[in-house]
Amino acid sequence: MELKEYIQERAALVDQALLDIMPSQELYPVRIHQAMHYSVFAGGKRLRPILCLAAAEAVGKDFQPLVPVACTLEMIHTYSIIHDDLPAMDNDDYRRGKLTNHKVFGEGIAVLTGDALLTYAFEILARNGAEYPHNQGYWQVVWEIASAVGTLGMIGGQVVDLESEGTNLADEKHLEYIHTHKTGALFRASMRAGALLACASAEELKSLTIYAEKFGLAFQITDDLLDLFGEEKKLGKPIGSDAKNNKVTYPALYGVDKSKLFIREAIEEAETALKQLPGLIEPLELLLRYLPERQA
Amino acid sequence: MELKEYIQERAALVDQALLDIMPSQELYPVRIHQAMHYSVFAGGKRLRPILCLAAAEAVGKDFQPLVPVACTLEMIHTYSIIHDDLPAMDNDDYRRGKLTNHKVFGEGIAVLTGDALLTYAFEILARNGAEYPHNQGYWQVVWEIASAVGTLGMIGGQVVDLESEGTNLADEKHLEYIHTHKTGALFRASMRAGALLACASAEELKSLTIYAEKFGLAFQITDDLLDLFGEEKKLGKPIGSDAKNNKVTYPALYGVDKSKLFIREAIEEAETALKQLPGLIEPLELLLRYLPERQA
Repeated sequence: MELKEYIQERAALVDQALLDIMPSQELYPVRIHQAMHYSVFAGGKRLRPILCLAAAEAVGKDFQPLVPVACTLEMIHTYSIIHDDLPAMDNDDYRRGKLTNHKVFGEGIAVLTGDALLTYAFEILARNGAEYPHNQGYWQVVWEIASAVGTLGMIGGQVVDLESEGTNLADEKHLEYIHTHKTGALFRASMRAGALLACASAEELKSLTIYAEKFGLAFQITDDLLDLFGEEKKLGKPIGSDAKNNKVTYPALYGVDKSKLFIREAIEEAETALKQLPGLIEPLELLLRYLPERQA
Repeated sequence: MELKEYIQERAALVDQALLDIMPSQELYPVRIHQAMHYSVFAGGKRLRPILCLAAAEAVGKDFQPLVPVACTLEMIHTYSIIHDDLPAMDNDDYRRGKLTNHKVFGEGIAVLTGDALLTYAFEILARNGAEYPHNQGYWQVVWEIASAVGTLGMIGGQVVDLESEGTNLADEKHLEYIHTHKTGALFRASMRAGALLACASAEELKSLTIYAEKFGLAFQITDDLLDLFGEEKKLGKPIGSDAKNNKVTYPALYGVDKSKLFIREAIEEAETALKQLPGLIEPLELLLRYLPERQA
């Protein structure tokens, strides 16, 4: 199995499912549905859905029944991006080489597009849940997802990030809080959702949770490094924006060499966790290799 | 039973439940939790939770088990208000005599506060659902709530409202769309949630749905009239803002007399629907009397 082909194949599968599940762009009021499609299909790598599906396979289960839940993770991720890019937050004009939602549709519609994607994610989770009426674990999954993206998770991370900008809160504690919450929590919930829906044992769930946490950490550090050394053309956004916005980052706090060491250590710990799993772990091994190589 | 006492007593009960269920203001990051409390406890009348609980009683059931679900309706209503008040939307500085969320906490936090309340509503719905694992109807309720506040419901109404401002889209069709979606859909879902969780029959559900739709319509027309003739002190916001913002309203389109006639007709239809119900309908009768009398 090749990494690039694997990601492309899975991303195509998720894209098709998103297209099937999302309200059509022709539905009234068309502007909000167009805005939802614009950002959902703006070149995202679909990492969260891919990790969710791979978690089910790693415990020996079929990933197909999990596809709708995987799609909701991408909708939630897209909502968070649209709101983070707003002028009142990070004020970004470009993402993945395309204008951000509010630059195309205006700020009012951009706020509502984020709201709509978050709401629609829970609508799908509930609709899907009606098909699993006797599965107590399904409720647990919805609860974990909601909790991971709330004020003690993703939103909390964004609040602290927002408050830290331009202040001298740039210490290790804040950096860790921001990253485990702002990006880490949804990676973690994505894999735990996959594991729980695949009826993983407590031990398997623990291993996949460790993998997710280490993957999230390594992903974030590579993100910080790309903002320093990446190619703008491949990234689709200007580099150096973290320094410009006084953002606390791993290379700024620990230096580049130590940041790269952290990535290697996180990957090793994730690999160790994988060895405990009974199913197909090759995709999750491949995804770890993606991290130090990523260019966007 | 007196209307004022009834509303006060139920609102106090909902307030206490909200206080118990919401994350404490002392929780880190405190600013977002303070901002959530600020807007949730900014003097809302708790109409949606009260209608939800009254729907259960109207079919002869105890309202107590529904209190957590009723709270989520108020959280969703508050999220929608915070986002509607943003500068990119209606740009309101005051609501119920208090500064709007973004005037106190800034735009970035206000966007996140709305996001947080919406997310937390679904977290509570899911957590609560874990206690009803065999109740297929519970999923249906979550699905209906999500759908009512999505792009084919409340968000759709806000989009069309936003697009209509300052244009000549001010016709009957747009007015009806905006109001049945922007305010009507959540009133409707609140009562249907109460009815469904109380295991109402199909006929009872139908009667309560009619009541909710007529209540929502009459509520909206009185809202439009208050913006023309209300007392700013009681309303807690400037009057005349609809005309200033070129908003399409009932009195602007049909005149004041016909608007008042619409209110009377809606109340009569709601009363007729109530007569079909086997339980305690006095509170819902009282709430209809509130509509033509309301001053805020």
